[in-house]
Amino acid sequence: MKIALLGFGTVGSGVEKITRGIPALDIVKILHRKPAKLNDSRATSSFDDIVADGEIDCVVEAIGGIHPAREYILAALEAGKHVVTANKAVTAAHMGEFVQAAAASGACFLVEATSGGGIPWIKNLQRAARIDEITGVHGIVNGTSNFILYNMFKDGADFAAVLAEAQALGYAEADPSADIDGDDARNKCAISATVAFKGLVPVSLIPQFGIRTITKADIDWCIQQGLVCKLFATARCEGETWCATVEPVLLPAGELEAAVPRNYNVTCLTGATIGDLKFYGQGAGSLPTGNAIVQDLLDIASGEAWPLTFDRALTHEPNLLKGRYLIRLSARTAAAEAAFGPLAERWEEDGPGRLLVHTGTVGSGELHRAVSTCRQDDPGLWIARWIER
Amino acid sequence: MKIALLGFGTVGSGVEKITRGIPALDIVKILHRKPAKLNDSRATSSFDDIVADGEIDCVVEAIGGIHPAREYILAALEAGKHVVTANKAVTAAHMGEFVQAAAASGACFLVEATSGGGIPWIKNLQRAARIDEITGVHGIVNGTSNFILYNMFKDGADFAAVLAEAQALGYAEADPSADIDGDDARNKCAISATVAFKGLVPVSLIPQFGIRTITKADIDWCIQQGLVCKLFATARCEGETWCATVEPVLLPAGELEAAVPRNYNVTCLTGATIGDLKFYGQGAGSLPTGNAIVQDLLDIASGEAWPLTFDRALTHEPNLLKGRYLIRLSARTAAAEAAFGPLAERWEEDGPGRLLVHTGTVGSGELHRAVSTCRQDDPGLWIARWIER
Repeated sequence: MKIALLGFGTVGSGVEKITRGIPALDIVKILHRKPAKLNDSRATSSFDDIVADGEIDCVVEAIGGIHPAREYILAALEAGKHVVTANKAVTAAHMGEFVQAAAASGACFLVEATSGGGIPWIKNLQRAARIDEITGVHGIVNGTSNFILYNMFKDGADFAAVLAEAQALGYAEADPSADIDGDDARNKCAISATVAFKGLVPVSLIPQFGIRTITKADIDWCIQQGLVCKLFATARCEGETWCATVEPVLLPAGELEAAVPRNYNVTCLTGATIGDLKFYGQGAGSLPTGNAIVQDLLDIASGEAWPLTFDRALTHEPNLLKGRYLIRLSARTAAAEAAFGPLAERWEEDGPGRLLVHTGTVGSGELHRAVSTCRQDDPGLWIARWIER
Repeated sequence: MKIALLGFGTVGSGVEKITRGIPALDIVKILHRKPAKLNDSRATSSFDDIVADGEIDCVVEAIGGIHPAREYILAALEAGKHVVTANKAVTAAHMGEFVQAAAASGACFLVEATSGGGIPWIKNLQRAARIDEITGVHGIVNGTSNFILYNMFKDGADFAAVLAEAQALGYAEADPSADIDGDDARNKCAISATVAFKGLVPVSLIPQFGIRTITKADIDWCIQQGLVCKLFATARCEGETWCATVEPVLLPAGELEAAVPRNYNVTCLTGATIGDLKFYGQGAGSLPTGNAIVQDLLDIASGEAWPLTFDRALTHEPNLLKGRYLIRLSARTAAAEAAFGPLAERWEEDGPGRLLVHTGTVGSGELHRAVSTCRQDDPGLWIARWIER
């Protein structure tokens, strides 16, 4: 199969390296802004040449971002070329039109590498879903925030110190917002839920709360209680309604998800006959993510690629996910009282500048609405949902 | 696809239940010793009728044991019928001839349900192995022994008490030997290693040590050290040599494998580009194991079944796996001295009737040989290998 690679960064170079050992996969063009820099006869700066090349069967999109990734993917699909992407942002935002374009031209559009990095997650979701109705998915899908939380727990360190370490090691970007504020996890959540539930889950309807405001004092509190804090993406489907969130959770130490170290990921699904399945592995990196892309390429080459289908019309029910939450505020202000009073079961003083709100079981929509009304007033507030056994 | 089901126990009834919802899979015959008891028009006591029925495409073997399972599988394959089995004992013992018979007649022989129950392990091993050379697999693959160890740790209970509880709950059989002495894990280890390394791994060359001799005092010792004991099946391949063991291991609490609860399983693989992948789920039970069988059936029906191939000639190197071991004896006898003296780095008195031998890094072949020379003398001895980070 003749392949064009768009982009030659972390992911693109991983794909190139792995396919060298696989004769069936032949990379014939590499799109790069400065082709001369690559010192490779396959390098070109012209996407138009790639899309016009009738020899090219398949395009691997590894440039990231929304533009021009979206236009490239659409043009390739419309030209009847298969597209394999690792780009969660563009996939979460434009899945609908990509799948439609693929169906129209008979090309494949595959996204294994968008969610869970090297974990064989999307294909296993599809496999599980051909037998069971998948009622829930959840997971730790952002390696950067897991690295930060893991090290804060391990070393009793401050958020800022661990973030700086993650940046020095290349686990966090100079602007880490997309990772630590939950945008990246939210994109993966929308993609995973869409595949699991076979209905389009719009990313914009998923409330998110990241890890930026967690403090050493919060970690110490968790450790005292025998708890571990992780950033979860969670989605549930009941009948034709769905709900999803990205938010910190509190797990008893000793739970499987609590044991996910460093920048690793875990993804979990629940089905009626299979019960709980969990998949653990490297959520990012050149070779793991490259491996996921090559799996998609091999499936296309052998005629075993499964189209993404989401013809179920699902309704968003913002309070379908319910739970007990912990909210840590700096003070019991009027705004806090107005926001959390109706949800609180108990207010607890926990030392100077630490006020804990323990809610009863509330809908996630309701909770995140309350958080957003209070956040301007108390920008350092932290929330987490209890995972109960 | 027209299917004959051999056996209607736990697994067979699960398969029947799940396929009711899948029109492509049509169970037309059910082999049962007492067909009248089933009250099902598909029931028959004649395997000959099934094998002679040209309409039947596929046979699901869910009777267990070696005979007549082996004869039925061979006869079905020779008649050109696909065979899907959940039977680890017959698969581990006769994989070679089954795969040969399948290749000769062009039928498929699939074994997803033999190892890891509902965990999609075999297919994911095959998928990983089409890109990476798999250098190692390991896992907790026997739910009964995990249930016993988990409850001994949780409740500080005696082995005998937890075994009785497991038997009452149906998690352990009246004769629990195959589970607690490691035979079952050894079969799954041979099958997994054969798929992973693409060369036949004979089950007879895998040394095993089960969990029968672990005591409450051993568990207390582990807890004091911050360790968890699990029963691991482990296999490694380097170049053209392989080695495998089934034995207890000691993990720091907080490791992922240490967090596997109750009768759950986890299976893990290591490859050059993918790194570590781990798969968690229900290792047994009617619906999970039935689900694994139905996955195989769906792959056959859609032409996506992958034959087991193991054309690599591998050599067994009994000391390729190395580690530090702990051996708990009742006394420092002459036999113990002779067996473990050469391997010991340190002997430690640990209260009355408890002598701990701490070995240096030794080959697993060497260790298990020493254990077998000493075991008659000290039948209650317990061993475990340290998992190091």
